[in-house]
Amino acid sequence: MPNTRSLVAKAPGAKFEKAEMPLRALHENAVAIKILYSGICHSDIHQARDEWFEGIFPMVPGHEIVGEVTEVGSKVSKFKVGDRVGVGTFVDSCRECEYCQKGMENYCLRGNVQTYNGRHYDGEPTYGGYAQDIVVDQNYVVTVPKSLDPAAAAPLLCAGITLYSPLKHWRVGPGMRVAILGLGGLGHMGVKFAKAMGAEVYVLGHSAAKKADAIRFGAKDYLITTDSFESHRNFFDVIVNTISADLDVDALLGMLKVGGSLVNVGLPGNHQSYNPFSIIGGLKSIAGANTGNIKDTQEMLDFCGEHNIVSDVEIVNASDAQAVDDAYQRVVASDVRYRFVIDASTI
Amino acid sequence: MPNTRSLVAKAPGAKFEKAEMPLRALHENAVAIKILYSGICHSDIHQARDEWFEGIFPMVPGHEIVGEVTEVGSKVSKFKVGDRVGVGTFVDSCRECEYCQKGMENYCLRGNVQTYNGRHYDGEPTYGGYAQDIVVDQNYVVTVPKSLDPAAAAPLLCAGITLYSPLKHWRVGPGMRVAILGLGGLGHMGVKFAKAMGAEVYVLGHSAAKKADAIRFGAKDYLITTDSFESHRNFFDVIVNTISADLDVDALLGMLKVGGSLVNVGLPGNHQSYNPFSIIGGLKSIAGANTGNIKDTQEMLDFCGEHNIVSDVEIVNASDAQAVDDAYQRVVASDVRYRFVIDASTI
Repeated sequence: MPNTRSLVAKAPGAKFEKAEMPLRALHENAVAIKILYSGICHSDIHQARDEWFEGIFPMVPGHEIVGEVTEVGSKVSKFKVGDRVGVGTFVDSCRECEYCQKGMENYCLRGNVQTYNGRHYDGEPTYGGYAQDIVVDQNYVVTVPKSLDPAAAAPLLCAGITLYSPLKHWRVGPGMRVAILGLGGLGHMGVKFAKAMGAEVYVLGHSAAKKADAIRFGAKDYLITTDSFESHRNFFDVIVNTISADLDVDALLGMLKVGGSLVNVGLPGNHQSYNPFSIIGGLKSIAGANTGNIKDTQEMLDFCGEHNIVSDVEIVNASDAQAVDDAYQRVVASDVRYRFVIDASTI
Repeated sequence: MPNTRSLVAKAPGAKFEKAEMPLRALHENAVAIKILYSGICHSDIHQARDEWFEGIFPMVPGHEIVGEVTEVGSKVSKFKVGDRVGVGTFVDSCRECEYCQKGMENYCLRGNVQTYNGRHYDGEPTYGGYAQDIVVDQNYVVTVPKSLDPAAAAPLLCAGITLYSPLKHWRVGPGMRVAILGLGGLGHMGVKFAKAMGAEVYVLGHSAAKKADAIRFGAKDYLITTDSFESHRNFFDVIVNTISADLDVDALLGMLKVGGSLVNVGLPGNHQSYNPFSIIGGLKSIAGANTGNIKDTQEMLDFCGEHNIVSDVEIVNASDAQAVDDAYQRVVASDVRYRFVIDASTI
């Protein structure tokens, strides 16, 4: 079995080390990808530290992958050597349940195969994008427009689709006012997408330090959340919450117009509560969405190519593996504008 | 000013008495209606007892009104003497806000004029349907098909539209599985409508005593709610909650398919809580809706005429006003199948 040079956490919370890790065999439908860049998602940190559930170690995180095809299996028709491609948060799904049949693999009833810290259905652990290579079934690989900077495109594979998918589902477009709650890796993609879709976009946040960035990304204004509960009642069609802290759900619902939706993509760890009148009184919804499917991911990447949308990134040189540990610390401190990506050539 | 014989609560929680109460003047756009039947809604009880907020007394409740036009103002074009008509939960709205302009008068930003226990914009109190007559602006009056029994049609004006409107909004139809949580005045209308719209309908409740009724109304099955949390996971497209008790929101969300909605029309008095993962993990929504607009109310009545849908009712003979107090006691005890209506000729 071939190996690939990887950044490995050998135990929960351990510092990253470089090691050779096994690559998945190139079966007839698989694509071998030389990784160019791999984004650092906050969920990588939760999983590398076992903060969500007991992980599979050694772990190679990374599910925001952009690379180039280096080899294809005998039955691969979607890709050829040299293609610029991407891999997101999952690399397989059952293909049989009602949601896989509908192309909603992100909600696979069997549970799709996560790109890392998961297991293929044959039991092999999955290793992710903090590596030089990965092998993935062609049906779970997407095409990345070559016009996009590959480093800045990497975060589209998770942060991007996680915002694009709900904005599409809730039909964001011209004539709508959209608020993005939280301007981080997820939120800054939400602003760019909602603006490109034709909506009037606002950022809600707790300090005005990022106001200039919000405007640069396309927001009409940056509002201090708590200050605008009263001044912006009945104002938004959709509020997308990208943060994972506890929410004042009723106050946010009050900012929605009749028929509006509070859509959660950030995942607070605690139960949240609401006054039933806050939804009944205005035909409102508290909703949520989890990443996106393969078809929408491709559509999102094509949209990005057309509108020249990428993430704002800081590139991590991993010549010293410690650089990834340092980046993790800065992510936890919200000190990144707006996404770290690892240059795989330095691994 | 003309008067009309009415059932009056003179103070919060007082027994009903008969009295002559003032009728609204017949202005040029108004319609005078001889009331035939008036439904008893649970909200009448809350308001007559000041359980929600400080009411306006003396109070004449009633917002499920069916009657006949006896006189019309000089500019009335929609109705003529002898027409069978209905009046629901509101009798005016600002007509200027964005929602009134869109025909969503039930969400009027100024606050629409409630049929009773409210005030017209000129300050006059409103008196409702427990009376022999009412005068209402033609724009807030709807036509009731004469093919429907007028007593059984009265509850359509609140219970009916309160279920019809969200079922329409959430696009209930063939190929969908819908659960109605609670089989009371609201719930039994929900079953009839969802069935007539082509959905596969289930009732969720706490005892099987009403199973035969549920089947008779068109349900495929009656499920004991708590027993079916596990057996019916990923089962429903829409769950409509008609009860006002605290809910196990996460368990109900677990019964929804991906993309499903838990739609609340019952109004629990307490905050409700949910695990954010319960919505994010399946593109789900916790939503709510409040009655319906005039256009949908007319559409609902036409739909009822076409499908011969009415409420199951028990008729209250109000020769002795005490009969209404007795009916209130039975409503509170959930001892009515499925709606009381007062025969206005007995007032």
